[in-house]
Amino acid sequence: MVKKVTLLPNERLDDLLTYELMIIQSREVFSFSMDAVLLARFAGIPPKGRVLDLCTGNGVIPILMTTRTKAVIDGVEIQPRLADMARRSVEANELEEQVHIYEGDLRSFHEEVGYGIYDAVTVNPPYMPEGAGDQNENEHYANARHERNGSLDDIVAACARLVRTGGRVSMVHRPSRFVEIVETLRKWKLEPKRIRFVHPHAEAEANMVLIEAARDGKPDVKLLPPLIVYNEQRQYNEELMKMYYGDKRPGARETSS
Amino acid sequence: MVKKVTLLPNERLDDLLTYELMIIQSREVFSFSMDAVLLARFAGIPPKGRVLDLCTGNGVIPILMTTRTKAVIDGVEIQPRLADMARRSVEANELEEQVHIYEGDLRSFHEEVGYGIYDAVTVNPPYMPEGAGDQNENEHYANARHERNGSLDDIVAACARLVRTGGRVSMVHRPSRFVEIVETLRKWKLEPKRIRFVHPHAEAEANMVLIEAARDGKPDVKLLPPLIVYNEQRQYNEELMKMYYGDKRPGARETSS
Repeated sequence: MVKKVTLLPNERLDDLLTYELMIIQSREVFSFSMDAVLLARFAGIPPKGRVLDLCTGNGVIPILMTTRTKAVIDGVEIQPRLADMARRSVEANELEEQVHIYEGDLRSFHEEVGYGIYDAVTVNPPYMPEGAGDQNENEHYANARHERNGSLDDIVAACARLVRTGGRVSMVHRPSRFVEIVETLRKWKLEPKRIRFVHPHAEAEANMVLIEAARDGKPDVKLLPPLIVYNEQRQYNEELMKMYYGDKRPGARETSS
Repeated sequence: MVKKVTLLPNERLDDLLTYELMIIQSREVFSFSMDAVLLARFAGIPPKGRVLDLCTGNGVIPILMTTRTKAVIDGVEIQPRLADMARRSVEANELEEQVHIYEGDLRSFHEEVGYGIYDAVTVNPPYMPEGAGDQNENEHYANARHERNGSLDDIVAACARLVRTGGRVSMVHRPSRFVEIVETLRKWKLEPKRIRFVHPHAEAEANMVLIEAARDGKPDVKLLPPLIVYNEQRQYNEELMKMYYGDKRPGARETSS
């Protein structure tokens, strides 16, 4: 399946566990997390058209979304090293026709492509304000975790500029900033429509929130069933297994038809 | 236990199922629902001090909260018939020392008692804007369901006026209006601190939301574990059973100490 792949020192080629997709990762710069997988499954995206992923990192979200849509998917990443990894991962999966990686700044990306040209935008942004938390991490980790290249307001503003009226913006973030996120979305005319909280287990507080908003939508939000990651046996729940492995995972139950 | 109770035509005395509390109800005007029980259990209230319940209806929330606090609890109800029922229920439970029912309008209640005098405020308001939904219901039902005696904004403003700085305001409402509620709370300097969604079963959308906010609090919200009402056998979950029956319910498991 994998045709060509160039790995730099300390890089590895990881299996995305679904549809035989692969991704280049490196401990030095970034590894995708469950957050990205859940967003790629949750986001409202059209069967065709144009989709944009901001803060795309090593491109895991665009690559995973190719299993759900025939839309052209653009990814924007500000760090050259990550944009390069993302491009090589796209090539490794032979997705160059469908996925395009731009090295650029989300705050000015509309100058390159124009306003309101996407049917859907996804973003897994840094979770912490600039300056919060551990300041001893390396540059790449700091950029992935902290709002050093744009605040939450900058990021939401970019989503609002780039999505068309009626188009969808989907985000994953931390519940502790949930109220601020909702207010910022509405400030930029992005109306929350679907919200899903993710709980590590059934008796735990949520540690992740998935939000889908509609550009210029009417106020009316659905609170989806909670997504519980682990069952009582400390294994992934059935729904999580399906998100990671699709229907092709080893030992998947046969459908009795 | 019950010392004196006067019932009017079509009224009945219901068992609150917990701590031998009783409540006067009538099909003609109002019956308490699970929403009120969950709010009475969820609300952040101090062990003593002063607590206020707005839109108190037949007084079910103040009466249930007496099992959790020694605070003096005031209830405000605009409909004379309901305020009268609430007062008689308070007497039936011999709670006149702790619970006081006022017949009045929440929009002007601060003129009677002053600003910022309560440590905590609870409210189970009408869920629908004025004019929405079925208009053929009787006066009492219409007042309980529709914002005919104050909009969401009026209600939240009253909570903000009456609670002290740092005090808590707790509300139960419909998830479809969740975004509007959060914005309205913040507009009136009530910062959401604890949020819990209630789902009829584990795979269903939320149909209720419990929110606790702090007057002049710092932004930082906890998303509590989901409250799932029914288990897979279509019976109340253990947690719900405990909320309704406390530890005194028939067949409750003995604590092995």
